[in-house]
Amino acid sequence: MPIVDIHTHIYPPSYVDLLRTRKIVPYIRTFADAPDSSRLIILPGEDDPSTPSTSRGRPIGPEYYDIAQKIAFMDQHKIDKSVISLANPWLDFLPADEAGEAARKINDDVNEICAKWEGRLYAFGTLPLSAKTDTIVSEIHRLKGLKYMRGVILGTSGLGAGLDDPALDPVWSALQETGQLIFLHPHYGLPKEVYGPRANEYGHVLPLALGFPLETTIAVSRMLLSGVWDRFTKLNVLLAHSGGTLPFLAGRLESCVLHDGHMKSAGTRDNRRSVWDVLKTNIYLDAVVYSEVGLKAAVEASGADRLLFGTDHPFFPPLEEDVEEWHSVNANYTAISKAFNDDERAKDVLGNNAVRILRLDE
Amino acid sequence: MPIVDIHTHIYPPSYVDLLRTRKIVPYIRTFADAPDSSRLIILPGEDDPSTPSTSRGRPIGPEYYDIAQKIAFMDQHKIDKSVISLANPWLDFLPADEAGEAARKINDDVNEICAKWEGRLYAFGTLPLSAKTDTIVSEIHRLKGLKYMRGVILGTSGLGAGLDDPALDPVWSALQETGQLIFLHPHYGLPKEVYGPRANEYGHVLPLALGFPLETTIAVSRMLLSGVWDRFTKLNVLLAHSGGTLPFLAGRLESCVLHDGHMKSAGTRDNRRSVWDVLKTNIYLDAVVYSEVGLKAAVEASGADRLLFGTDHPFFPPLEEDVEEWHSVNANYTAISKAFNDDERAKDVLGNNAVRILRLDE
Repeated sequence: MPIVDIHTHIYPPSYVDLLRTRKIVPYIRTFADAPDSSRLIILPGEDDPSTPSTSRGRPIGPEYYDIAQKIAFMDQHKIDKSVISLANPWLDFLPADEAGEAARKINDDVNEICAKWEGRLYAFGTLPLSAKTDTIVSEIHRLKGLKYMRGVILGTSGLGAGLDDPALDPVWSALQETGQLIFLHPHYGLPKEVYGPRANEYGHVLPLALGFPLETTIAVSRMLLSGVWDRFTKLNVLLAHSGGTLPFLAGRLESCVLHDGHMKSAGTRDNRRSVWDVLKTNIYLDAVVYSEVGLKAAVEASGADRLLFGTDHPFFPPLEEDVEEWHSVNANYTAISKAFNDDERAKDVLGNNAVRILRLDE
Repeated sequence: MPIVDIHTHIYPPSYVDLLRTRKIVPYIRTFADAPDSSRLIILPGEDDPSTPSTSRGRPIGPEYYDIAQKIAFMDQHKIDKSVISLANPWLDFLPADEAGEAARKINDDVNEICAKWEGRLYAFGTLPLSAKTDTIVSEIHRLKGLKYMRGVILGTSGLGAGLDDPALDPVWSALQETGQLIFLHPHYGLPKEVYGPRANEYGHVLPLALGFPLETTIAVSRMLLSGVWDRFTKLNVLLAHSGGTLPFLAGRLESCVLHDGHMKSAGTRDNRRSVWDVLKTNIYLDAVVYSEVGLKAAVEASGADRLLFGTDHPFFPPLEEDVEEWHSVNANYTAISKAFNDDERAKDVLGNNAVRILRLDE
């Protein structure tokens, strides 16, 4: 039985070079007060100049860009194959006239990395979303021809107005037509003020533990409400972090739609598909949820045949020195093992689903 | 077996009078362009003067303030007892020197309403949170002496700085000492911009379906992270809407705490209790989650002996005319029935837990 990690990120050298040239978020820099290590600053609000550089962003070491470390991590954790994706924030920040070329270069680089580890690595590509729509659509068709690509990773901002923007229809259409999976992943979280005046005391906990999954939930709900899946009935999306919170909130979301006076009086679309229908037909969930409770809810919502193991490497490494096995990875392994009593469904989630859905035997 | 509704709101006459005197949110008003019905405007952003009055807030009819309608609703839905609570936004908006008296009057009114329906109605009181701390603490002790009161309903803003504010410690202490349950309920949701430029097309769906539960999740997470339950180990909280999303996100929250470099270097409290410990010891969840998936996650997270049936009446009425049974209520009944195959645990959730926890046989 293969074990496949479908949620694992990489900063390929061309992306690292790009981030090192920048002075505003996102960027990589070595600060004067800590010359021995570079910092990766990617999240809004991580770049507070009043704080010491060691509390800004996170140290970036070779685990972020050296593929040999990814392979060593896979070996350590018995992972046979990984479907790597560019780490957030992808390319949304690039000027329109630079995005297309940057995406081609990064996608080619990632594809080459996979070629060097034939059979062990596949990838999700990155789209030049700030470019013209035809540039984006061209890259989608080009990705289809790259041997190790199996879909695209996508943030929640779309072309700048979110994923309920009708201007995205050509992008959805091209992805549906070429049968490429969208890996929907958060980056921006929520506005800082929602965490209150003491949020800094909790480090990155509130933005990462709550902001990320809530961002995903809002994004996928906007896709549902605007009818993306009513128009593109074969568009497939893999939601990061087991759907954010969608499995838990799907019932409330559906109830609120059915009880909303404005939506009713505006006229419900005849072809409106329920949240549950889309969850069981178009949505896949990763199993990066760190608990048996969350994992079981994900299974109930979309089915054990639609759930895929992941690690979120290189994020959430052990804080202790000299610990080789990652607690964050083992939390997800343990949840799968317990939820299924290690039966056939565990094997499906750990690898068989990914092989089937992403054609990893080709 | 009694059926008990612990999530059901009322606007008693003294509160309606107060809201009718106001010109800014929250308020009740009859607009000139629709003289036949009053509107209840309570949520931030509901009061856009550029829209017709019929799209602002919601119509307020006798089901909001006439207790006979509450009783009729209970009879219709086979509910034996209700623990009523003031509807949001409670009294946070009042000047400090008015809040204490307003809370006393409203709490006395609600207690009298319960007295008129002896055995069928109990209540959660309301705190004058904008008043001085000793006024709040006095009202907590006074509530303990009101015959039908069984705790307090609380929003997420606390004294204005959220529920991780150390200035709340005397409030937590008084509630713990008097053994009164806190019913934690959302009101403010999330900043409007998180829903994007097309949010108005979806009516109230995004703020109600996602904003409300996310607000609750952030609030309870801030209580956890700031150590409220490490200091007040017997403080009991009932979370609205099955905990917002806490059951689903508890694993990720706990993992993020354990992997946060800042929290580790700041020194973890020796007595830090895990999210799971607090969920199973101090937290109760209502069963207002509208799906079997959500309900099962709530049960897994806190236990079937800590889950309590609710309706959210008078909100989410049927939109069709001449429909007597409420779909929103039946969605929650159905979820309980299916999740437990109607066994003993279903009876616990439907009523026995509430009778035991809230002493409704006294």
